[in-house]
Amino acid sequence: MNFKEELERRTKEVQEAVFQYLPREEGFPARLAQAVNYNMTAPGKRLRPLLMMEIYRMYGGEGEIVYPFMAAMEMIHTHSLIHDDLPALDNDDYRRGRKTTHKVYGEALAVLCGDALLNYAYETAFLAFSMEEDTKKTARALQILGRKAGIHGMLGGQSVDVMNEKKEMSRQMLDYIYENKTAALIEGSMMIGAVLAGASERETEKMEEAGSCLGLAFQIQDDILDVTGTKEELGKPVHSDEKNKKTTYVTLQGVDQAQKTAEKLTQDAKRLLTGEKDEFLQMLLDYLMIRKK
Amino acid sequence: MNFKEELERRTKEVQEAVFQYLPREEGFPARLAQAVNYNMTAPGKRLRPLLMMEIYRMYGGEGEIVYPFMAAMEMIHTHSLIHDDLPALDNDDYRRGRKTTHKVYGEALAVLCGDALLNYAYETAFLAFSMEEDTKKTARALQILGRKAGIHGMLGGQSVDVMNEKKEMSRQMLDYIYENKTAALIEGSMMIGAVLAGASERETEKMEEAGSCLGLAFQIQDDILDVTGTKEELGKPVHSDEKNKKTTYVTLQGVDQAQKTAEKLTQDAKRLLTGEKDEFLQMLLDYLMIRKK
Repeated sequence: MNFKEELERRTKEVQEAVFQYLPREEGFPARLAQAVNYNMTAPGKRLRPLLMMEIYRMYGGEGEIVYPFMAAMEMIHTHSLIHDDLPALDNDDYRRGRKTTHKVYGEALAVLCGDALLNYAYETAFLAFSMEEDTKKTARALQILGRKAGIHGMLGGQSVDVMNEKKEMSRQMLDYIYENKTAALIEGSMMIGAVLAGASERETEKMEEAGSCLGLAFQIQDDILDVTGTKEELGKPVHSDEKNKKTTYVTLQGVDQAQKTAEKLTQDAKRLLTGEKDEFLQMLLDYLMIRKK
Repeated sequence: MNFKEELERRTKEVQEAVFQYLPREEGFPARLAQAVNYNMTAPGKRLRPLLMMEIYRMYGGEGEIVYPFMAAMEMIHTHSLIHDDLPALDNDDYRRGRKTTHKVYGEALAVLCGDALLNYAYETAFLAFSMEEDTKKTARALQILGRKAGIHGMLGGQSVDVMNEKKEMSRQMLDYIYENKTAALIEGSMMIGAVLAGASERETEKMEEAGSCLGLAFQIQDDILDVTGTKEELGKPVHSDEKNKKTTYVTLQGVDQAQKTAEKLTQDAKRLLTGEKDEFLQMLLDYLMIRKK
């Protein structure tokens, strides 16, 4: 397998699946839909929907019921970026190589655009009801999506993160933030892929564990890239953690040890994903360790 | 029937049904849950969940499957108030007689608190899956909830409202805003009550129409109260429309004609709600016309 070619091909497939659900830019709320699409079409790794699709297939899923959930997950992730970039939060001017939403559409519409994407994620996921006879898998997948995005997931992690900026943090608190702010949606993506393919509750829990390891590794890698990367590579400013006096795995462990921690977590995730049809997934996890953005 | 006593009793019933779903204030994200509950427990009319419950019963609904949806609707409504009050939008200091969220918890947490409430609304509604055998009514109710809250409902209306502040607006645009910003959630409440009680598609459409009339009447009444009410009665500043140079039914028609328009719309809604067990609903609609807050 030529991994790079295969990654490009599958990412394109993911994008096409996701983009078919974007709102039309028409009528009175056209500008809101425009702001939504401005964000959704910005270049990105599409890591969460890609993982969802790969896990779905690893467990033998063959239909398209995973598509609306892939779109929903990417929408929830994008919603969180828009609000995270707001002046009241991180006050960032660039994201994914483009000006942030509030810079282009103003702050009021950026708030509403984030709201609209979060709500539209659920509207999109609800389309799965008509793709399944008894709606049981859809119901289970929705419950996972809701929990991983909310107070007991991503938004909980976000809230603790913003309330403790510029403060020294305990390792315990930092792990809570990484587990929720970053890992929760990755866990949810992998769990939903499993659930929709008909995997057992035990397999779904294993995916949660793998997502947790991968999510932590991913966030630690982000910490490292903020120190070692360039603005051109990342599409956003570097050294922002130092500027914001953030506690990260780099400040706690130094770059070398943080790298080792991320590598160990990646190995753990790879072990949990061992099975049939896992070749691409194993290579994807290795690739995430050497990514430059 | 002593209407005032009955209204008080039923509003209390609604509050108890809604409050049982509020998040616990514990662990790392305790402060986010606190901000959510600060908003949810502020005094309010609970009009949307009350209407949902009444319509559910009018169509013969007797179980508790309506409760998580009542809570979800009130959460979505409250989410919209929190974000609407933000400095980047209406910049209001008071709401429901209390300091607004960003005044108490800061702007960053107010953004996340609104997000958390929107997401928690869906998490709460998903609890209905375990209260129904085949999940079909829940699925239909969720689709209505999603649509009425989103780009093609409330958030669409909000976006056009904030983009056209301090501009003169056409009647067509104003009607679009009222229909979506205000009426959409009222329509959704009444439709979901009907759907969960097993009403037909035709009855559900009738509820949408009734909700549209009632929602418009309600918003016009709000325009009038902004001119004729007091801060003490309303729990929020008055004359804010004039201050913000807003186009409203009062600026378009004057207070007297606006009052007549609202009354006619209320009569239309009452006619659509005629049926069995409608006594309380009819009195509620009359009451909304003479409300002081």
